[in-house]
Amino acid sequence: MTYSDWIDAARQRQLRLTKPPGSLGRLEDVANRIVAIRETLDITANRPRIVLFAADHGVCAEGVSPYPQEVTAQMALNFLRGGAAINAFARAGQIDLKVVDMGIAVPVPGLIDRRIAAGTRNFCLEPAMTEEQLQAAVDAGKEMADDAVRDGCDILGFGEMGIGNTTSASAIAAALSGQPVEAVTGTGTGADDACMARKRSAIQRGLNLHPRNPLQCLGGFEIAAMCGFCIGAAAHRIPVVTDGFIATAAAALAKVPEYVFASHRSAEPGHAYLLAILGQEPLLDLGMRLGEGTGAALAIKLIQASVAAFTGMATFDSAGVSNK
Amino acid sequence: MTYSDWIDAARQRQLRLTKPPGSLGRLEDVANRIVAIRETLDITANRPRIVLFAADHGVCAEGVSPYPQEVTAQMALNFLRGGAAINAFARAGQIDLKVVDMGIAVPVPGLIDRRIAAGTRNFCLEPAMTEEQLQAAVDAGKEMADDAVRDGCDILGFGEMGIGNTTSASAIAAALSGQPVEAVTGTGTGADDACMARKRSAIQRGLNLHPRNPLQCLGGFEIAAMCGFCIGAAAHRIPVVTDGFIATAAAALAKVPEYVFASHRSAEPGHAYLLAILGQEPLLDLGMRLGEGTGAALAIKLIQASVAAFTGMATFDSAGVSNK
Repeated sequence: MTYSDWIDAARQRQLRLTKPPGSLGRLEDVANRIVAIRETLDITANRPRIVLFAADHGVCAEGVSPYPQEVTAQMALNFLRGGAAINAFARAGQIDLKVVDMGIAVPVPGLIDRRIAAGTRNFCLEPAMTEEQLQAAVDAGKEMADDAVRDGCDILGFGEMGIGNTTSASAIAAALSGQPVEAVTGTGTGADDACMARKRSAIQRGLNLHPRNPLQCLGGFEIAAMCGFCIGAAAHRIPVVTDGFIATAAAALAKVPEYVFASHRSAEPGHAYLLAILGQEPLLDLGMRLGEGTGAALAIKLIQASVAAFTGMATFDSAGVSNK
Repeated sequence: MTYSDWIDAARQRQLRLTKPPGSLGRLEDVANRIVAIRETLDITANRPRIVLFAADHGVCAEGVSPYPQEVTAQMALNFLRGGAAINAFARAGQIDLKVVDMGIAVPVPGLIDRRIAAGTRNFCLEPAMTEEQLQAAVDAGKEMADDAVRDGCDILGFGEMGIGNTTSASAIAAALSGQPVEAVTGTGTGADDACMARKRSAIQRGLNLHPRNPLQCLGGFEIAAMCGFCIGAAAHRIPVVTDGFIATAAAALAKVPEYVFASHRSAEPGHAYLLAILGQEPLLDLGMRLGEGTGAALAIKLIQASVAAFTGMATFDSAGVSNK
């Protein structure tokens, strides 16, 4: 059976469930897509995991973030201690959380160690990473997806932490979409006007210097790893939920859109262009702009509900409910 | 401390949590509102309950629904057996669910029995209910809120089932908003053109016959009970989450908007006018139009995440994270 055969089979089942046709709206499409991804009507989403990839960015030397680079390591420690928003969301949602050091400037003991280097290079001066580093980071992401599947996970999400990484994601968004820097650059963690001017200048210089290979030249280790994570999830036919602006830059580069679920619309202006490349409308639009996988965590709860309805509802026949 | 003092106190706390200011978007407002409702910073949302009120409608005699009236009782049995969408959502979301018979045409053993009568009267011919029936239905809803609070619930939701009740809700929406019948009348469970013509005609005749007292004259027992449920939740200072079009008609009549959280934007066109009366934007917009409390169940998961972040996150000081 092809992808569209499975979608049709899922739609037929939806019509037999005890609800007016189409009345669960987009949640019906979500379950139908998971049927097509998993190639079975017996879908599950009971074992969720979010993998959070953290790394530092050489472009911080350009003064592109209002927070000092040390905050990446400080927040990584906060993740380990359970004090960040994603920890609270994961606890509330009973979602397993793994935090991976892809290249924080200073190592943080306790993280999953897939360090490529102590941060990328400054893409205003040179490529952010070498070809070998890019491949290693993508492979690390794929392997995190392999591990999750080996652990029995049936729905995956991902997110990131890295001071300066909206600058990297905006550069990638400009490269992928052809949009001008102004259209894809937002305030990130809260840049003021002077910081925004430095950020836009850095992105423009990066784009001028690196007309090709945006992931290697303009990316981050965590962005490359998230790209690999999507590719790995797709290889295992496991649905994977993207997060906000930076995560979706990675998802757009992975070129496996049929396996990816857009979780929320970030307040970052460049996100819309990346979602368009992915060909998706997100499930949520709450004005969030935090990253860490927080949007993915919320969307996973909606996806679990859609799967629960698809597999757990009675049919008109079995329940003795009159159909039209 | 006043309501706005509590909002200010909540905002101050949000600024100390380890995230960029405002980066959780509307979920910050949700937590802040719960602080103001509960009058404490130590908010919880661990004990959710959804109460589903079911009743039949005399206006069904006008041929306003594509489904026969028997479906109300059939679906009530389906709720008891766990086969409906709300059952699947409640199981997935670990939300307690109670189902109340407010006046189904035929009693269904096993439901919570608050029956007012075997359905309302046909509002095209006479008031849907008497003043005494209205009061009894509102009181039953209040008492369901009392029971929930006695059982320790700290976040409530509600929903409904009743063949024909979008007709009742559209009539109420027209009466409350002043909008013409066409603007507030949708296809409900899936009315075709002929059914829609009968539906619009019935609503217009009801409005012409009953220029005052829309809840008594045009409502349903489940709508009156949901109105009472909101009033009861507000009296206990417990946040209460409305559902789709019909539930929000009840919420708009309850006149306690500061205690009510709008869950989702229904595909029914009249919902927007009721949300405007409530003064709220819903958290979700997924094209759902099922009722049963399904939208409330999804929104409760988002609200729980917002509360978990508010109470469970570290502060910049406690986590040793550099602030701007």
